[in-house]
Amino acid sequence: MHKKYIFSNIIGIFIFNEHYRLLESKVFKNYEDDKKVKLDPFYKNYRNLREPTGKEISRILEFFKKNEYFKEFFEKNVLITKKAIKSSVKKDHLVVQTINNLADAEKVTNTLVKRLRDWYELFNPEISKSVRDHEKFVDLIISKSKKALLAEINVDESMGTDLPKSDVKPIIDLAKTVKSIFELRRKQEDYLKKMMEALCPNMLAITGATIGAKLIAQAGSMKKLTRFPSSTIQLLGAERALFRHLKTKSRSPKYGYLHEHPLITNNKKSLHGKIARALADKISIAAKVDYFKGKFCGDKLRQELDKRFAK
Amino acid sequence: MHKKYIFSNIIGIFIFNEHYRLLESKVFKNYEDDKKVKLDPFYKNYRNLREPTGKEISRILEFFKKNEYFKEFFEKNVLITKKAIKSSVKKDHLVVQTINNLADAEKVTNTLVKRLRDWYELFNPEISKSVRDHEKFVDLIISKSKKALLAEINVDESMGTDLPKSDVKPIIDLAKTVKSIFELRRKQEDYLKKMMEALCPNMLAITGATIGAKLIAQAGSMKKLTRFPSSTIQLLGAERALFRHLKTKSRSPKYGYLHEHPLITNNKKSLHGKIARALADKISIAAKVDYFKGKFCGDKLRQELDKRFAK
Repeated sequence: MHKKYIFSNIIGIFIFNEHYRLLESKVFKNYEDDKKVKLDPFYKNYRNLREPTGKEISRILEFFKKNEYFKEFFEKNVLITKKAIKSSVKKDHLVVQTINNLADAEKVTNTLVKRLRDWYELFNPEISKSVRDHEKFVDLIISKSKKALLAEINVDESMGTDLPKSDVKPIIDLAKTVKSIFELRRKQEDYLKKMMEALCPNMLAITGATIGAKLIAQAGSMKKLTRFPSSTIQLLGAERALFRHLKTKSRSPKYGYLHEHPLITNNKKSLHGKIARALADKISIAAKVDYFKGKFCGDKLRQELDKRFAK
Repeated sequence: MHKKYIFSNIIGIFIFNEHYRLLESKVFKNYEDDKKVKLDPFYKNYRNLREPTGKEISRILEFFKKNEYFKEFFEKNVLITKKAIKSSVKKDHLVVQTINNLADAEKVTNTLVKRLRDWYELFNPEISKSVRDHEKFVDLIISKSKKALLAEINVDESMGTDLPKSDVKPIIDLAKTVKSIFELRRKQEDYLKKMMEALCPNMLAITGATIGAKLIAQAGSMKKLTRFPSSTIQLLGAERALFRHLKTKSRSPKYGYLHEHPLITNNKKSLHGKIARALADKISIAAKVDYFKGKFCGDKLRQELDKRFAK
């Protein structure tokens, strides 16, 4: 009895005789579906079927070099790759995009507010100087007239030129645009927080949304973050200072993104290094609990830190 | 007969006797107004009045060192300075602010569109790749569903993940903000053009609004621009390249802001230097005509250039 070979790939299932000639084949209509459902086992008609090994495989692969299969190979491959790409987007990616967008939006508002103040000060310098908060400043100049604003800060006469309405309008247009970016930022901060409540509640409890998201973004994904030692987490965001330290023996950084954490900003400087180390430890634990879907313990971890460092 | 002195400053008019003692004074109520209207000539009662000179002035100034005058001096000085500031804002300043804002707004849209595309491509990469124009891309994703967009470019299935509405909304929010910046830019371009029609119609005819405004902004004001030789105008905006040239003997720049001019972009490279020189000549003339309110000749100047270089 001669041997027969059964060979399957993304196109279908093929049966060859001992001379590597095709005897019968069953082409998949839809790779994903056909792999799952049990195929009509047409090959049961054959006895002595076995899968090729070693040199036999190369002989069989030669068969598939024929042009008639090329198109099908190409198209199915593209399809499978597309599906893999499609399913590769994780919640992490959205967190990374959101936090990066927030960073961009902050930069953008700073650029535009600087310009806005510069421009508006030709018209009404007193208000710009007395209201340091950017968003409040923008709100005020959108909603109130120059006269009303000056009355509020008890200035009789402004140093600014009295511009006609047609020259004030472009300034207010700019202010409105800036306002809309402030609003966008608020919306996206809420969205980020919601996402993180689902993705990493433990980390969120310790770091807050912004720092947590920055850590994930810098690491690349939650998965990668779980593989970092806590000393790496401590320095995420301080890459430049770290490499400067390694290169020039300048002082080593104590923290990266963690420097914005309230536990650090509210404590005196001599404790910063210690707190950053403790924080990174807890974040490392929390990230692992989050990634492997452990029981929620973020509140406990945070309490331990607060007990030790909160004043 | 003894001499008497009359002396006036921002506080008022003072009459002194030969011992530098005050005889009578008339204090201004409002400096600006009182200077203009003819003062009740109370000093006509005095004979032999004359203005002090040399040493006499120093003696009289000593009189004003008294504290009682200090407050008035200070307040009136502040008032006058404020008025001077108030009247120092010229149309030029608004042009400069507008063009600088347009430059900022362009940078800002580029930053945000880059982020938007990056983010949106997780969801629907095919559209982002097929629509290269930023504003059109933004319009499309705001107004149409993923399905409708894919149908338009004949793609059956997207590589992008099918995100739930709650994850698409933040992306569209960002797109809407970007759209509002695009609209702001258009409004401000119109405003800039209108201002320049009034401020410098001749320059506008030759350079267009953007290049003209950039030249004014770089020079500082129309007045300063009129004082530049045309060779300086030719290189405005190419300062970095110019100083690099002076420092390192690298090739000298041919033009700065002028490189965006259609006469240059539409002609072959070997002509660029020549055209930039001719352009700068005409701009130099136009700026002077504009500043000194000469007769409109911008169309003639532009025609001369077009005749010589336009294809």
